[in-house]
Amino acid sequence: MNREEIEEIISRNHKKINSGEVADYIPELKNMDPTILGVTIASINRDSFTIGDCDQRFTIQSISKVIALIVALKDCGFDKVFSKVGMEASGDPFNSIIKLETLQPNKPFNPMINAGAIAITSLIKGQNGEASFHRIIQLLQTITGSRHIELNEAVYQSEKETGNRNRSLAYFMKSTGILEGDPEEALDLYFKICSINVTCSDLAKIGLWLSNGGQHPHSKEQIIEPEIAKIVLTIMMTSGMYNASGEFAVQVGFPAKSGVSGGIMAVVPGKMGIGVISPPIDKKGNSVIGVHVLEDISKQFQLHQFHV
Amino acid sequence: MNREEIEEIISRNHKKINSGEVADYIPELKNMDPTILGVTIASINRDSFTIGDCDQRFTIQSISKVIALIVALKDCGFDKVFSKVGMEASGDPFNSIIKLETLQPNKPFNPMINAGAIAITSLIKGQNGEASFHRIIQLLQTITGSRHIELNEAVYQSEKETGNRNRSLAYFMKSTGILEGDPEEALDLYFKICSINVTCSDLAKIGLWLSNGGQHPHSKEQIIEPEIAKIVLTIMMTSGMYNASGEFAVQVGFPAKSGVSGGIMAVVPGKMGIGVISPPIDKKGNSVIGVHVLEDISKQFQLHQFHV
Amino acid sequence: MNREEIEEIISRNHKKINSGEVADYIPELKNMDPTILGVTIASINRDSFTIGDCDQRFTIQSISKVIALIVALKDCGFDKVFSKVGMEASGDPFNSIIKLETLQPNKPFNPMINAGAIAITSLIKGQNGEASFHRIIQLLQTITGSRHIELNEAVYQSEKETGNRNRSLAYFMKSTGILEGDPEEALDLYFKICSINVTCSDLAKIGLWLSNGGQHPHSKEQIIEPEIAKIVLTIMMTSGMYNASGEFAVQVGFPAKSGVSGGIMAVVPGKMGIGVISPPIDKKGNSVIGVHVLEDISKQFQLHQFHV
Amino acid sequence: MNREEIEEIISRNHKKINSGEVADYIPELKNMDPTILGVTIASINRDSFTIGDCDQRFTIQSISKVIALIVALKDCGFDKVFSKVGMEASGDPFNSIIKLETLQPNKPFNPMINAGAIAITSLIKGQNGEASFHRIIQLLQTITGSRHIELNEAVYQSEKETGNRNRSLAYFMKSTGILEGDPEEALDLYFKICSINVTCSDLAKIGLWLSNGGQHPHSKEQIIEPEIAKIVLTIMMTSGMYNASGEFAVQVGFPAKSGVSGGIMAVVPGKMGIGVISPPIDKKGNSVIGVHVLEDISKQFQLHQFHV
Repeated sequence: MNREEIEEIISRNHKKINSGEVADYIPELKNMDPTILGVTIASINRDSFTIGDCDQRFTIQSISKVIALIVALKDCGFDKVFSKVGMEASGDPFNSIIKLETLQPNKPFNPMINAGAIAITSLIKGQNGEASFHRIIQLLQTITGSRHIELNEAVYQSEKETGNRNRSLAYFMKSTGILEGDPEEALDLYFKICSINVTCSDLAKIGLWLSNGGQHPHSKEQIIEPEIAKIVLTIMMTSGMYNASGEFAVQVGFPAKSGVSGGIMAVVPGKMGIGVISPPIDKKGNSVIGVHVLEDISKQFQLHQFHV
Repeated sequence: MNREEIEEIISRNHKKINSGEVADYIPELKNMDPTILGVTIASINRDSFTIGDCDQRFTIQSISKVIALIVALKDCGFDKVFSKVGMEASGDPFNSIIKLETLQPNKPFNPMINAGAIAITSLIKGQNGEASFHRIIQLLQTITGSRHIELNEAVYQSEKETGNRNRSLAYFMKSTGILEGDPEEALDLYFKICSINVTCSDLAKIGLWLSNGGQHPHSKEQIIEPEIAKIVLTIMMTSGMYNASGEFAVQVGFPAKSGVSGGIMAVVPGKMGIGVISPPIDKKGNSVIGVHVLEDISKQFQLHQFHV
Repeated sequence: MNREEIEEIISRNHKKINSGEVADYIPELKNMDPTILGVTIASINRDSFTIGDCDQRFTIQSISKVIALIVALKDCGFDKVFSKVGMEASGDPFNSIIKLETLQPNKPFNPMINAGAIAITSLIKGQNGEASFHRIIQLLQTITGSRHIELNEAVYQSEKETGNRNRSLAYFMKSTGILEGDPEEALDLYFKICSINVTCSDLAKIGLWLSNGGQHPHSKEQIIEPEIAKIVLTIMMTSGMYNASGEFAVQVGFPAKSGVSGGIMAVVPGKMGIGVISPPIDKKGNSVIGVHVLEDISKQFQLHQFHV
Repeated sequence: MNREEIEEIISRNHKKINSGEVADYIPELKNMDPTILGVTIASINRDSFTIGDCDQRFTIQSISKVIALIVALKDCGFDKVFSKVGMEASGDPFNSIIKLETLQPNKPFNPMINAGAIAITSLIKGQNGEASFHRIIQLLQTITGSRHIELNEAVYQSEKETGNRNRSLAYFMKSTGILEGDPEEALDLYFKICSINVTCSDLAKIGLWLSNGGQHPHSKEQIIEPEIAKIVLTIMMTSGMYNASGEFAVQVGFPAKSGVSGGIMAVVPGKMGIGVISPPIDKKGNSVIGVHVLEDISKQFQLHQFHV
C-alpha cells in the first residue's frame, strides 16, 4: 500500500460526491462544505498517509457511540452494560422507538442506535456531567495526542435544542426502568459527546488503537483491556454502519462506525486504523465517498476479514 | 489443539443439556434423543477429531439456508440474488412477517430468515423441483464425500403438512412480486432442503470447505468462487444464529449457522470447520451445548476474529 | 325527503368524480365505467327513490363481509364467532398481517378486515363450498327479491388468481389455529362471496332489512334475530368504512359498509337503507362520491345518530 | 326505570368486584378503597337516582380527555383540532407510541389515547397554563354546579413525577411537529386535567349535558354548539373504552368514556347521563363492575343505539 494507490482510489470515487447530501437536521451540520475530503491511514507499522483535508475539524456525531461504549464497559463491566442494552443488529432506523415498545425485555437492541447509546451514556461515571465529559475528552486526547479535541459549543447547543426525538427515547427508557438517573443529564452528556470536534486523522488514530487491542501503538500503554476492544470491534462489524451494516460487512469486511457529519472510523484488526471525512451522506446516514473509498481499499489490499 | 482439550470442553458443558428443549413443532424432531452429543473438528492441516455421536444422522434444517444461498449465488449471481433479499440482520424472529409489510422495498431482510431463504430457494436452477433438489444433494456429497446425505422423507412430509407459516410468507412475497414462479414449488424445494440428513462430521466438512474459500481441501477443486464463500461467511457472521447472532459474534467471534434440530456448522476462516450436534435448543433456536462448546473452543484457542 | 332533494345532492357532488380512481388490482374492476352513478333509498315507510344507474350490476366486494358475518352468527352463535375474531377497529389497512403476528391472542381485530372475514367465512355451514355459497345467494335473493344476484364468474376467477395476499393471511391464521379446516376452501368461498353481482337497489334493500332489525319489511318474515342485526350494525358503525370508519362515523353518523367496486350499503336504523354505486374510490377504498352523498343526506335530513 | 331496578342490577353485579384490580401505577390511585361503588343516573326528564357512594371524590383521569376535546374544539375549531389528531380507533394500547413512528402523517389516531389527548391539550387557550386550567375547572363547575371540582394536588404531583411514558409521547410529537409550543407545558396541563376531583354524580351531569346537545338541562344555556357534542359522542362511541371500545359498542351500544380510577361517564343521547364509580379495573383499564352495570342497564331498558 502506498500513497499513490490511495490517491488513485480517492480520485476514482470523487465524482460520487453528488450522490449524497450534507446532513441538514441542524444548521451547523448543514453549513458543512460538501467538498471537504480527507483520508488518513494509520498503520501498526507506522506506515501512514494523510491525504486531503485531514486537518479539517468536524463533530464526531455517532462515532462517539463507540467511545461511550468503551468507557461504559471500562466503568461498569460487561454484565452491567449488557443488562441495559443488547448486542443484536436491529434492522430498524437509528432513531426508532418501536422495538422499545414491542419487545420484552424492552432494552435497546444495541449500543450503536440512539436509544442504546443514550442508555450506555447514563452508565459513564463522573461526579457530575461535566466531569464525565472531561474524562471522555481526556481519553480521546490520550489516544490521539490531539489538543484540538474539544466540545463544539454551537453544535452542542443545536443538538440540545432540536433533540426531541432523543428526548422521547430517553423518557421512554426511563418509564421502563432501562434508564436509571435523570434522563436530562444522560441526554446532556449524550449531546455533548456527539458534539466533540475531531479530524479524520484523529479517527484513524482511534481506529489504530482499537486495531491494536486497546494498547497505545507508541506509548505501549494498555489503555483498555483487549477484551473491550474485541467486543467493540464485533459490535462495529455487525451494527456500525446504521441500516447498511450488513451490506458494508459483505462488501468491505472490517469493523467501522460512521456519523452523519460524514466521518467514518474504520479498523483493520491487527493492521491499521482508517479515518475518512466527506460530508455528503446517503439515505442511511453514511458518507457516500467514505463507503466507496473503504470498499476499494478493502478490495485492492485484500483486507476483508473473510478473504481467504 | 488436541482431542483431550476438546473432550474436556465437552464434558465441562455437558450438564447444560437440561437448559434447553428438543424442538417440538414437528413430531419427527420431537422424537430426537436429547442426549445425542457429537463434535467434529476438521482442520485445514488435516488435524481433525470426531468426538461422540458423529455418525448420528439428523436433518440439516436451517443450516440448509447457507447451502441455498451458495447455490443461488452460483446460479444467478450477486445482483439478482440481492435484488430479492437484503443483507441486513433483522432483529425479528426467524419466521416473522412484519417487515415484509412495513418496509419499502419489502424484500426479506436477509437469506438466513425463513422468508429470505424461501425467496432464495426459488432462484435455484433445475428443470424441475426434483432436478434442483438433486443438484443440492450432489453438491453436498461432493463436498463431504458422504453417500448418506439424502432426503429424510418423514421429516419432509411433516414439514410440508405443518408449514403454514412458511406458506403464509411465500404467498405474501408472491403478492409483492418478490417471489417469482409458483409459491408451492418454491416451498416444496425449501421443505426438502431443510429435510436433508447429515451428521456433524458432514457439517464440519462443509465448514472446512468454506474456511478454505470454497476450494475442496483434498481434491483442490474450486467448487465455488472464493467471492461466494466470502459473502456467505459474512452473512453467517451477522445473521447465522437467529436472534442471538450479535451475541454469538461478540462471544464466539467466527461465522456459524444453526438449525432447530440442534446442529451448528461453524467456520474459522483459513483454519477449520466445526460441526456440532446436541438437540436441546434455547428459546432462540440454537443448541445450548453447541453454543457453549463453540464459545469455549474460541476462547481456549483464541479463534475470535477480532482477537488481537 | 323527496326525489328532487336527493337529485340536487347528487348533482352537487358529481364533480368530485375525478378525485378518485377506479380500483385496478384486478382487470375486471379496472374496466368498470367510472361515470356509473346510482343512488337508491328504501324507506321503512315504502317512500323510496331510485336515481341514476340503479340497474347497473357490480360485484359486492367487501360489502359481503357484512353478509358473511350475519350468516356465521346465525350458524354458530355469538361466542363461537367472537372466539375467532375480535370486535375492535384496527387502525391498520384492510389487508394488514402485522397484528396477527404481534398481538396475543392473535385473532383478527374484526370481521370487516380481510383476515377477519376469511376466518368468519370458514364458519359458514354447508355440505361443501358450493352448498355454503348457495345458502348465501338464497339469503340475498330472499332479502332483495332479485333474481340477478349471482356469481360473477370472471371476477371470481380473477380474485382467485391474484389473491395471494389473502392466501398469506389464511395460511398465517391456519398456523396459529384461528382458521380451522382447509384454508383453500375458506378462501374459495371468500373469493366467491366477494364476486356476487348486485345493484345499488339491492344494497338499499339489504340496508332496509337491517334497519328493520332483520325482519323483511314486506313479508314481515324475521329472517335473522334482531340481536344479530344490532351486532352487525354496531360493527359497521365502528369498522365498516376501512381506515376512514371513525371519520365517517363523525361526519355521517350511521352504519355503512363499502367495497372497492365503489358500492356502499348504508343503514339508518329504524328508518331506511341506502345503496350507492360510483366506482372511483379514494386511497382508503371508499367511493368518493358515495361518501359525500351520504354525508350530505345525513346533514340535510338530520340522520346522524348523535344529532340531538 | 326506577331506583329498585337499578339497585337490583348493581347488587347482581357486585360480586364481580374481585375480577378487577385497583390501578397501581401511582400510589394515590393504589390507595383507593376497592369497595367504593356508586351509580348516578341523571335523566333529561329530571327523573334521577343516586345509589351508593355518589359523594365519593376520585380523580377524573382519562374521562378528562372528553373535556379537553370539547374545549379544544371550542377554542380552535374542527379543522385545526383534526389537523393534529385523527378520528380513527387505533387498536393499540392507550399509551402506545408505535403508530406515531410507523404511520404517515404521524398524528395520533384519536383524542382518546394519551398521545392524542396531549396534542389536544396543547390547543387549549389561556394566557398561561394556570389560566387554561382554570377555564376547565370553571366549565366543569358550570355544567355540574359542583364546587368541589378542583385539583387533587397529590395525584397531580404523582402523575407529574411518574409520567415519563407521556413525556416520551410528547417529545416524539414535538420532534414531528404535531405538538406546537413547549411539551412540558402541555404535559403539565394534561397531568392537571387528569387530576381533577369529581364524583359519579358529576359524571352523570356531564353526560346529561352531552346527551342534551351541550345545552345545560336546567339553565338552558347552550354552553357549546350541538355540533361539538355530536362529534364528541361519536368519538366516545368508537374510542371511549380503550381497547374494548368496539366490544362495549356491541354489548352496551351508547357512548361512554372510562378512566383508570374506575369511573365511567356514559351518555344515552337525548335521554340521560350515567356516572359510575367502582375502582377495580380490568386489564384494558375499564371498571369491571361499571361495564357490567352499564351493559345490564342498556339491555333492561333497551338503550342500545341500534336496538330496533
